[in-house]
Amino acid sequence: MKPSIPKGTRDFSPTEVANRSYIMNTIKTAFETFGFQPIETPSFENSSTLMGKYGEEGDRLIFKILNSGDFLKKADEQLLADKESTKVTSQISEKALRYDLTVPFARYVVQHQNEMTFPFKRYQVQPVWRADRPQKGRFREFYQCDADVVGSKSLWQEAEFIQLYDTVFTKLGLTETTIKINNRKILSGIAEVIGAQDKLIDFTVALDKLDKIGQAKVEEEMLSKGISEEAIQKVQPLFNFKGSNLENLDALDSMLATSEEGLQGVKELRFVINATTELGLQSANLEVDVTLARGLNYYTGAIFEVSAPKGVKMGSIGGGGRYDDLTGIFGMKDVSGVGISFGLDRIYLVLEELGLFKAVDLPKPKVLFINFGDAEGLYCMKAITELRKHNIKAELYPDTAKMKKQMTYANNRQIEYVVLAGSQEIEQEIFTLKNMITGEQQKCSKADLIKKLR
Amino acid sequence: MKPSIPKGTRDFSPTEVANRSYIMNTIKTAFETFGFQPIETPSFENSSTLMGKYGEEGDRLIFKILNSGDFLKKADEQLLADKESTKVTSQISEKALRYDLTVPFARYVVQHQNEMTFPFKRYQVQPVWRADRPQKGRFREFYQCDADVVGSKSLWQEAEFIQLYDTVFTKLGLTETTIKINNRKILSGIAEVIGAQDKLIDFTVALDKLDKIGQAKVEEEMLSKGISEEAIQKVQPLFNFKGSNLENLDALDSMLATSEEGLQGVKELRFVINATTELGLQSANLEVDVTLARGLNYYTGAIFEVSAPKGVKMGSIGGGGRYDDLTGIFGMKDVSGVGISFGLDRIYLVLEELGLFKAVDLPKPKVLFINFGDAEGLYCMKAITELRKHNIKAELYPDTAKMKKQMTYANNRQIEYVVLAGSQEIEQEIFTLKNMITGEQQKCSKADLIKKLR
Repeated sequence: MKPSIPKGTRDFSPTEVANRSYIMNTIKTAFETFGFQPIETPSFENSSTLMGKYGEEGDRLIFKILNSGDFLKKADEQLLADKESTKVTSQISEKALRYDLTVPFARYVVQHQNEMTFPFKRYQVQPVWRADRPQKGRFREFYQCDADVVGSKSLWQEAEFIQLYDTVFTKLGLTETTIKINNRKILSGIAEVIGAQDKLIDFTVALDKLDKIGQAKVEEEMLSKGISEEAIQKVQPLFNFKGSNLENLDALDSMLATSEEGLQGVKELRFVINATTELGLQSANLEVDVTLARGLNYYTGAIFEVSAPKGVKMGSIGGGGRYDDLTGIFGMKDVSGVGISFGLDRIYLVLEELGLFKAVDLPKPKVLFINFGDAEGLYCMKAITELRKHNIKAELYPDTAKMKKQMTYANNRQIEYVVLAGSQEIEQEIFTLKNMITGEQQKCSKADLIKKLR
Repeated sequence: MKPSIPKGTRDFSPTEVANRSYIMNTIKTAFETFGFQPIETPSFENSSTLMGKYGEEGDRLIFKILNSGDFLKKADEQLLADKESTKVTSQISEKALRYDLTVPFARYVVQHQNEMTFPFKRYQVQPVWRADRPQKGRFREFYQCDADVVGSKSLWQEAEFIQLYDTVFTKLGLTETTIKINNRKILSGIAEVIGAQDKLIDFTVALDKLDKIGQAKVEEEMLSKGISEEAIQKVQPLFNFKGSNLENLDALDSMLATSEEGLQGVKELRFVINATTELGLQSANLEVDVTLARGLNYYTGAIFEVSAPKGVKMGSIGGGGRYDDLTGIFGMKDVSGVGISFGLDRIYLVLEELGLFKAVDLPKPKVLFINFGDAEGLYCMKAITELRKHNIKAELYPDTAKMKKQMTYANNRQIEYVVLAGSQEIEQEIFTLKNMITGEQQKCSKADLIKKLR
């Protein structure tokens, strides 16, 4: 039987690891340049840390780890007989694989608060696991790349995260991304104005379709969801949201004039937009988008989302926002947090589609030494040992195989140079260096070899 | 209730992550210089891939993942009622966390053999999980750092792995390590000579105590384990194993003259010793150790183990060997493998004890800008944006807090420089740069700032 891996998981080949490392290292370097510090948390947490934090659906998608040893001993006989899987779970499983990096981070902050200096800027790049139905671009094991600040309500953080997105995507060659920004308080303001908090999601979902289906159809959908004619009249400015970010904020100001919270949201957004305008962006566009809601009940201030360049079909490649009570779930009150996440797998697909991995240094030797026998092998290994001390990736073909086989190996691995050293070369203390791309061959000393390959 | 993490797992602080990354990157860089390519495999495998590969004790220590949804549906009622935990396991769990990197690698090779070029040199640095009883230096989640070659029986690989150990430990500043080497075939030869394959472990365990308890006590132990007086006479050369490696090999040659397999083992070892003598080592010592057995039934050729420098109390910090049938367990026959592993956690403890982390670049900003208000903040953020483009780690204190609080933050994070920019500096378009170590202050332009901090 051919071995396989669980559905929704992946093996990564050397090229894939190199490409993924390139993305992750670009993100990590930017995180550190912006003053974020790395932490790592265990792959599994106590179930009590994770359960009940992601809603009922989330709880279902958390991978549970079976207790070791005689795990059934503590299980209730009746529940087992009734096959009450959900109720039995907590009796036979006390640990679970982390579902995201945010809840473990909140747990970390509470547990280590006395060792930390606040505001604490942390980044974390680790895998998470979800028992979701796998589909294109959705996996059961995937990496999250998160940066968060806790312990400060300063809006400079929001401005900084926009700079951070711009820096990373520019470095990756991914220009013309769109960073969309909204504020939860503006959404609350809109809910106040339309007079229906419970209709807010229906409202934003309908408004989001404006570009695709036009104003008439959007209004029709709103009416069908029970949003009143009068309410729709009040939010007319949202249907003409085509000006500059600052013009749109002015329109929001008038529209939300009766909502204190809404006005506060506009004020916060204005600060971030102004700061970004002053600081400038290298290649991204910043766009106020009042339909942006991402996990409405989670965020309390700014909401971010990044779209790939136009023309690339892909959902968001990053997102985040401010949540005023990150650590409250673990009993530490009034600690505001704001953070963003990079969607590694989607960024990978976008870079691949746009041919932006060309510059990645693939994990292969710069030079292969052909193996003609034990004496020649030793002669080569002495040179290889020198080359490696100069950080040149060099390799001896391990076996005294036929020349053709060794050259095929070099070709398959796309190795740029091959060294041939037989008895003649040994006698003259030289090496024959062959460029596998041009076919050119030349004789050179060991010192020359180092110079040419460095 | 204060949140906690499962026993045997760890949170890593920024400094710990930086130190661990320093070790891992040193190892990875050396792996690549030696021509090894990275792969990654999923954290969990199908249980059938892992179970039965590590012996009964190993099976017990593998973390099993509970099936999602109504996992009890397929479980046998009678087994549940009898609380037959072991038998129920396979009915409610189909996946398990990987226990090491070797079995997943063997699975990878078999599964992807048609996409690979052999000999295949792979490295893999990923966590593994074991439900072992936690103790000092032993965790339930820990990283393994492995390099293996499959598809070649060449002894150059063994020689190369010794170079690799030497390179990594020298780079880490860990000089005077001892790389011990043995060969399974020599152990088989000894078993032949003493006429008892089943006494081999008792024999090597006793012999290993030679330095501590002396020859008389060792012979006494051997006799008590049923090894004959005659057999002990035959292996007398092992009690005088004090010469150079080559002298010891000569002694083994005479002693094992009647064992074909034993002589083959000596021949292989001689090749590796000779190659290493010719190539030289930067800082490690190579030592033939016939008591070295490490998982006797696993290895078929060379066996390696590395000890920390004398004076540091620590078990082995690395080990490995050759196994002639790596992929046989998955139905792909006759693929020889040889590999080594670095013990990250133990290396960490040794470097810490010897104060060898001093050179590690800690994840903290080079400079903190004090925040005096929105206008000053913007002035600073403009400079910070510039600095970051020059890869200088810079940070604005996010809030307009009291000066003392901001300076305390800089001190706590051991930030080297602080920039003060109030209305006066803004007017003159300058910055006041304070060296937090010397206390020295100076005024400088933005260009100067970049020059000084780069």
